[in-house]
Amino acid sequence: MERVAIIGASMTEFGQRDGWIRDLLAEAGTACLDDAGVRPDEIEHLYVSNMASGEFEGQTGIPNALVHDLGAMPAYTQRVDQTSSSGGAGIYAAWQSVASEASEMTLLVGGEKMTHRTTGEATDVIASLTHPVEYKHGVTLPSFAGLTAQAYLDAYDAPRESLARVAVKNHRNGVDNPHAQFRKEVDLDTVLESPIVADPLRLYDFCPITDGSAALLFCPESVAKEYTDDYTVLTGIAGATDTHVVHERTDPTVMGGVVESSRQAYEMADRGPEDVDVAELHDMFTILEVLQSEDLGFFEKGEGWRGVEEGVTTRDGDLPVNTSGGLKSKGHPLGASGVAQAYEIHQQLLGEAGPRQVDCEVGLACNVGGFGNCVTTTILEGAA
Amino acid sequence: MERVAIIGASMTEFGQRDGWIRDLLAEAGTACLDDAGVRPDEIEHLYVSNMASGEFEGQTGIPNALVHDLGAMPAYTQRVDQTSSSGGAGIYAAWQSVASEASEMTLLVGGEKMTHRTTGEATDVIASLTHPVEYKHGVTLPSFAGLTAQAYLDAYDAPRESLARVAVKNHRNGVDNPHAQFRKEVDLDTVLESPIVADPLRLYDFCPITDGSAALLFCPESVAKEYTDDYTVLTGIAGATDTHVVHERTDPTVMGGVVESSRQAYEMADRGPEDVDVAELHDMFTILEVLQSEDLGFFEKGEGWRGVEEGVTTRDGDLPVNTSGGLKSKGHPLGASGVAQAYEIHQQLLGEAGPRQVDCEVGLACNVGGFGNCVTTTILEGAA
Repeated sequence: MERVAIIGASMTEFGQRDGWIRDLLAEAGTACLDDAGVRPDEIEHLYVSNMASGEFEGQTGIPNALVHDLGAMPAYTQRVDQTSSSGGAGIYAAWQSVASEASEMTLLVGGEKMTHRTTGEATDVIASLTHPVEYKHGVTLPSFAGLTAQAYLDAYDAPRESLARVAVKNHRNGVDNPHAQFRKEVDLDTVLESPIVADPLRLYDFCPITDGSAALLFCPESVAKEYTDDYTVLTGIAGATDTHVVHERTDPTVMGGVVESSRQAYEMADRGPEDVDVAELHDMFTILEVLQSEDLGFFEKGEGWRGVEEGVTTRDGDLPVNTSGGLKSKGHPLGASGVAQAYEIHQQLLGEAGPRQVDCEVGLACNVGGFGNCVTTTILEGAA
Repeated sequence: MERVAIIGASMTEFGQRDGWIRDLLAEAGTACLDDAGVRPDEIEHLYVSNMASGEFEGQTGIPNALVHDLGAMPAYTQRVDQTSSSGGAGIYAAWQSVASEASEMTLLVGGEKMTHRTTGEATDVIASLTHPVEYKHGVTLPSFAGLTAQAYLDAYDAPRESLARVAVKNHRNGVDNPHAQFRKEVDLDTVLESPIVADPLRLYDFCPITDGSAALLFCPESVAKEYTDDYTVLTGIAGATDTHVVHERTDPTVMGGVVESSRQAYEMADRGPEDVDVAELHDMFTILEVLQSEDLGFFEKGEGWRGVEEGVTTRDGDLPVNTSGGLKSKGHPLGASGVAQAYEIHQQLLGEAGPRQVDCEVGLACNVGGFGNCVTTTILEGAA
C-alpha cells in the first residue's frame, strides 16, 4: 500500500475571532490549498472536523458550505465529530480516504467557533459529551482533571509545581507562535496563585475557550512528488477508546486510549517512543500532558512529571513537547485542535517552525476526546 | 485491493419510539452483531451516523456511549454527519476503514431520535443545514420540493398523479415491512386530497418525522468467508456534492450529486444502470424518487414519472424501487435512513426480504443530504 503524504498545511490565528465558523474554515482551507499550490477543483474528498456548530451557532451542513466557499464542487464531503478529538479523527478519516484509494486529493479542515457564547454555555455543550450519569451530577471535564491531578500527585509523590511548570513551558513556547491565542509568558507564581478551578488545579492549568481553524492536504506519496519536495509522510495512525464512564477505570491516572492508540500507531510506523523527536500532546489541562507523556512511553509511569522539571520536554530538551504552545497557550477550538497539532509537527519536520524550530525527523501528535474517552495518535515523518 | 463484504445487518422498528438515541443505537448494534455471529470485542472500528443528537437531545459523544453500551472497548469510534445522508456517508466511511486496512471488522450504526420534538422544532434543526441565505428567508426543504415538483411537471408535461402514485406504491410496499412506521395502504385520492404543504405537493408526498436506527457490519471478503456464506459485497460506492445554494443550479430538476456519485460508483463496480435489479431511493419527497430514477440513469430525463405509472418500479416490475416502503412509509430517522436503505438491499440480495422479496443480483442505494447538496450512491451485489 502506498504511503500517504501531507503536501499542504495551514492554521488561522487562534483566539477571539470575528465572523462565523464558515469564515474560519474557508480561511484555513484557502491557505492550505495556497500552501500546496493545489486548485480547489483538484480536491476529491473534503472532511470537516467540528464538534458542535449546530449547538454553538445553529448552523449545520458546514461541509457543504465549505465546498461552496472554496469552489470545490463536486468534491465529496462530510463532517467528522469525535468531540474534542474531532481533529485527530479527521486526520484518520482523511488518511483512510487516500489509503483506500477513494480519493487522490483529500482536504481536511478542522474548526470551531465558541467565544461568542458564554463560558457557561460552552462548558455545557462540551459537558454533553460525557456519560449522562456524570453530566447529571455536574461532573464536568475540569472536575475530572482536578480529581485526577490530586490522585496523580498522591500516587507518585509528585510536586504540585511540576504541573504548573507545564503551563509555564507551554506559554513560553506560545510566545513564538504567531497563531497562538496567548503570546505571553507566565511565571510559576502566577500559575500557582491563579484562582482555583478544580482543586488542586487553577485557572492557568486550563486551556482557554477559542475560535480557530486549521487544515491539512493529503495525497498518495507518488502524487505528492508531482507537486513538491516539501512534504511529510503519515507513517502511523490509530485510534482507541477508554471507558465512557470515567469512574469505571481501574487507574484514573492511566489513559487507556492513549496506550492502545499509540501501541497501534507505533506498530504501523515501525517506530517506538524512543524514535520520537518532537510531540504535540493534548494539554487541555496540565495534568493531561504529564499523563500522556507516560502513556505514550516517553516516561515510565509516575515519572512524567519530571519531564518538564528536568528540562526533557522544553524546547531545548531531548524531547520537546508542545513547541506550538499546546492547547494551553495556543488555544483549543475543539474541531481544529487535532489538526493544528499535526500542522505544528508538519512545520517542524519541514524546518519551517521559525523561532520554535527543533531538530527532528519523527514527530507525534496525540489528540484526546472527552476525558480520554477516545484518542487518536498520529506519527509523521519527513519524506527523506 | 480486496473486496469489502457486509456480513451482518439490522434495523429497529421505525416510528415513534420510547427511550433515547443511545437505546436505539444499542438495539440496532446488538441485533447486527447477533445477525453476523460476531462478538462486540471483535469490532475494531465503530462509526455512528447521526445528524443532530446534540440539537435534538442535548447529548453528544454518542459514539463513545455506544462503545460502552455494546462492550466494544477499545474499538476506535467517531460520528459521521452529512445531514440527511449521514447514513450513506457512514457506509462510505466504514468501507474506507476496511478498504484502507485500518480495520478488519467495522460496525456502522446510524440513528436519530426526533419525535419527542415538535414538527416545528425538528424542521428548524433540519433547515439549519441549508445556506443561511435560504434559511433566513424561510426556504425550507419542503418548499424546495414544491418548487421543484412544479418545475418538473411543467417541463416534462408530467401528470400530477404520477407523483402521488410514488406515495401509493411505497405505502403498499411498507405494508409488508415489519419495521416500517406506516404499514397502511393509501389510495390516489387520499394523497391528492391531503392538506397542501408546498404546492403542488401535499402531506402524503412527504416522509414523516421518525425515530429509528439501523446497522451494518463490514469486513474484508476473506474474513467474511470465515463467518458465513450469506454475505453481500459492496462493489461500488462514491459521494458527490451539488451547489450548496439551490438557486445556483442551472436546472433544478437535475440532481448533480446523484449524477456524479452514481457515475463514479458504476465505474468502480464496473456496472451500469441497466445492471441494477432493485434500488432504494431517497424519497423524502415523492418528486425526489422520480428525479433520482432519472439521474441514476434508470430513465431518460423527463421520463422518470412513467416509472410508477407504467409499473416499472413497482414490486413486480422490471426495476422495483423502494421495496422497503422507502422513506415515505418506512420513515426517515435522518442518520439511520441511508443505513436502512442498504439493509433492505442486503436482505433482498440474500433472499431474506420475505413478502417484499424480488428477483435480484445487483442492488443500488442512493442517499441524499439536504436538497441534493451531498449524495452517496452504493452498489451491493451477492457474493457469488
